Parts: sequence; structure tokens; C-alpha cells
Amino acid sequence: MKLLSFEHAGKTSFGVLRGDGVLDLGPYASDVGHTLQEAIANGAFGAIATIAERETALIPLDQVRFLPVIPAPGKILCVGINYASHVKETGREMPKHPMFFTRFADSQVAHGQPIIRPRASQKLDFEGELAVVIGRTARHVSSENALEFVAGYSCYNDGSVRDWQKHTIQFTPGKNFPQTGGFGPWLVTTDEIPDPSKLSLTTRLNGEVVQAATTDDLIFSVGDVIAYCSTFTELHAGDVIITGTTGGVGAFREPPLWMKPGDVVEVEISGIGTLRNSIKDE
Amino acid sequence: MKLLSFEHAGKTSFGVLRGDGVLDLGPYASDVGHTLQEAIANGAFGAIATIAERETALIPLDQVRFLPVIPAPGKILCVGINYASHVKETGREMPKHPMFFTRFADSQVAHGQPIIRPRASQKLDFEGELAVVIGRTARHVSSENALEFVAGYSCYNDGSVRDWQKHTIQFTPGKNFPQTGGFGPWLVTTDEIPDPSKLSLTTRLNGEVVQAATTDDLIFSVGDVIAYCSTFTELHAGDVIITGTTGGVGAFREPPLWMKPGDVVEVEISGIGTLRNSIKDE
Repeated sequence: MKLLSFEHAGKTSFGVLRGDGVLDLGPYASDVGHTLQEAIANGAFGAIATIAERETALIPLDQVRFLPVIPAPGKILCVGINYASHVKETGREMPKHPMFFTRFADSQVAHGQPIIRPRASQKLDFEGELAVVIGRTARHVSSENALEFVAGYSCYNDGSVRDWQKHTIQFTPGKNFPQTGGFGPWLVTTDEIPDPSKLSLTTRLNGEVVQAATTDDLIFSVGDVIAYCSTFTELHAGDVIITGTTGGVGAFREPPLWMKPGDVVEVEISGIGTLRNSIKDE
Repeated sequence: MKLLSFEHAGKTSFGVLRGDGVLDLGPYASDVGHTLQEAIANGAFGAIATIAERETALIPLDQVRFLPVIPAPGKILCVGINYASHVKETGREMPKHPMFFTRFADSQVAHGQPIIRPRASQKLDFEGELAVVIGRTARHVSSENALEFVAGYSCYNDGSVRDWQKHTIQFTPGKNFPQTGGFGPWLVTTDEIPDPSKLSLTTRLNGEVVQAATTDDLIFSVGDVIAYCSTFTELHAGDVIITGTTGGVGAFREPPLWMKPGDVVEVEISGIGTLRNSIKDE
């Protein structure tokens, strides 16, 4: 199933994608939960599938306004430097542990909404990534069992304000400007993606491919990063882990390639779909 | 006023300290808010002062179980390396910008509750700090005006698991183990602390002074760090900024000094009070 959060007719809701339409799950909130995050926590995917089989009234997809897949995750954990090609372009050594920074929920932006280039900088960069949405409480889990704790996958653009990222050795400021992190268009449940190491990821800026990778190049696998996180923090349903970007980011190009107002950036992952955002000034 | 979050008789509430007692504000929730965070957002300090003047029924302080001052802040932003003496002991250069990492809310622990030494490490260190609680929405504020956006101050022990902090250049894992960040005992409103640069801060481990500083030694003042944060993220009522620690942390001692089960760590700040936690194994 593909599940999305959206606004329609002035209401916030979530639903299931069916062809070019969305089955609104808002009317079933008391059965499945009021948000996608609640539905995940309630283990309601089976109930949703049953509802989706019998209901036929759909909202046309072009009439909904997407929200970030999980609009307000409890935790957003981001892996830095997790593809060998990106390690190479940054000039760093191969890491022994996954590197984690965090984003606040309000740094996210939905599919179809503009990524905001802040007043403070013109060095706005893209980072196409595979996003993992946690399905249930996880603490002290092993890499081997970690995929059992996944609800599904989505696309993420870990939009980065590079000069603010590099003010100090901590990345926090450059990764948290409002509406810089694209997240969408939807969550694809794990029955459709049993193995997240077999996906291909492409980032395009104005139609031109700027990043291309396959997830079998991840230095730390999806299972590895969940296991590592679950050692230092308890993960909960709806938490988001973004798994790192591959080579090709704008900052390391000669000359650097920054996103500017009017640009369109896309992150496409096989089996998931395409996250698309334009760029707009604050 | 001194305001605290607590549990009493199985209920979560918040209140005002009066002598050795607490005036429970739970019965006034519809007037002032259901939590301290809501009371701050509602600008309810005036109303609370009025209630506190006329009410005399108090809960003895030793009968409440403290909660972290703000149990679930929307954002917890932490400054690293903000006292000259700590810069010196870490061997770093004087910073040009404040360094920010983040903590998740569940890494916090209340006054009087044990800080948890995780299974994963024995390198548990203390960091006594001044905590700033934001009073209202702040974006793009100047250092000069920033103190207008403060609700009050408290003590924080930015408990750090040093080996996990140093797995990579990002501090996130070492700063987010559950129940490692002491926060309390209460919020002191800004009318009692008009100038946060005149405070003295002392950290004691088992009664022995291990850190001592005055906040006029902060490299980036409270106003500076609020202004910087407000450029890259929007701050809201109840958000917490911890302003960095001074020299004397255990990691840089020879031999290193780690906190272990049975130890008692205290962070005392003039005009605020003393945050006290024992250490316990996970």
C-alpha cells in the first residue's frame, strides 16, 4: 500500500493511494487512527487494506495538497556520509560508526510544496535519500531483526544550507531551516519493499540527473542504522530515519551548484515514486 | 516566581513554589493552561501570580515527584564549547559561531530522579549548564532584543556518554541516551533574573566541586545564542536552550572521572537552586 498525509477541503487527513485517487481514511479515524502516525502505532495496516478493498469513493490525487508523509515525527534521525561515493567527494575516511544528526519536524516540507531558500544564505543544496518510517517501539534491536520494526519507506530530500552546516563541526543549523527537508510523496509499506537494499535512487535538478545510487552501496544498511539508533534512543511508531546521501551534491561540484528560486528538484526511488519540490525564496 | 512540573497522588501537574510547599495549578488549568509549557504559551504568569497570592493550600515539597521542568519541549537546542575554560581543555580553537546539537525530550530526567548509566558505556560524564526556557515565538530576533523572548531559567546537567559522543564528529548519540539530561528543579521567571550574565554555576560530584564558572564567561551570551538559533529555526514557548558547559568535565581529567552508580551529581546556579541526581545503571 501507498499511504499519504494530505489536506483536502480545508481538512487534514490521511489516506491510501488507489490509481490516480486517494481513499480518505479520515471517516475511519475511530477504527484506524486520526493520523498516519497513529495508524502505524495502532498496527492498522490490515484494517486499512480491508477498508480499501470495499470502498470506491476516491478524491482525485490532483485535488489534495500533500503534507509531509509524517508531519510531526517524534524523532527525525539523519545519517551523514553513508555512501562510499559521498565519503570520497567529502574527502573523509570510511566511517566505523554511522554518523547521526537530527532535524526538527518544522524543517520538513511536503511533496509539491516549495523548499524555502532562507534569507540567511544562498548555499542551498540537495541530498536525495531513502527515508525509513519506524513501525513500532524499538530499543536494543539487532541489525538482523531491525527490519521487523519498519512500517515503510519514502523519499527524502535532506535540503542543506551548507555555510550554516559548516559554521561549526555540528551540522544542526544547516539541516534545520524551515521547509528545507522534502518528505514524500507517500509511505510504501514493507510488503511492497521487503528488501530496502535493492532500490535505485536518482536526484534530478531541473530534469538533469545530479545523484544516482543503489541502496546496496549504503555503508551502513537500513538494519544497521536502526540497530545503532536503538542503542542510544528508543524509537517509536512514526519516527523517521533518513539514511544518508550519495555522491553528486552541489557543494562539492566545481563550481558549486546551488538550488535557486524557480528550480525544480526531484528525488525518485524505485518502487516508491518521485518527490518533487520547487525552490522559493523566504 | 519558581514554577515546577511534578506528579502528586498519581496525577501530572505543575505549580508554584511557595516556601517549602507547592501551590498546585492543576485546578486552574482552564485559566492558565494544563502544563507549564501551556502556561508559558498562554502568557499566564500574571494570572498565576494572582492565584498564588490568594491561595494558601500547599502540597509539601517533599511529597511531590519532580518532572523535568518542561517534560516535552518542542525543541531542545544545546550549545557545545561555550566557555573559554572548556575550549581550552578540549584543545579547540575559539569558535566564531555557537555550536549546536540537539537532545530528544526522552533523554531528560527530573530533579531527584536517577540519571541512567546505559548498558552501552561506562563513560558517563557531567556538564553543568544554565538552561533557558523560551517564552514566545521567536524568529529572526537580534541579540539585543532576545531576552524579551525568555520565560525563565533553570539548571541542566547535559549528561554525556563520551565514547558514543565521539563515534563520529556529530555528538547526537552521546547526548541522547534515555534519562541522561537532568533538568530542574524549577523555572525561575525573568523578573527574578533580569540579567543572566551575572550567575554563578557550580557542579558537584559526591559533594566535591568539579566545575565552577560565572555566566559572564560565556563566549556567546544568552542573547547571542537565542538570536543565532532564531535565524535557522523558529523557537516557541517552552523550547529549551542549554547554553554550554564550563571546564572541569570528567573526560578531560587525568585520569578521567566517570559517574558511576551510587554517585550524586549536583548543578547549582545562583538565584535558581540546585538540581540533584543520583546515578543508576540501566
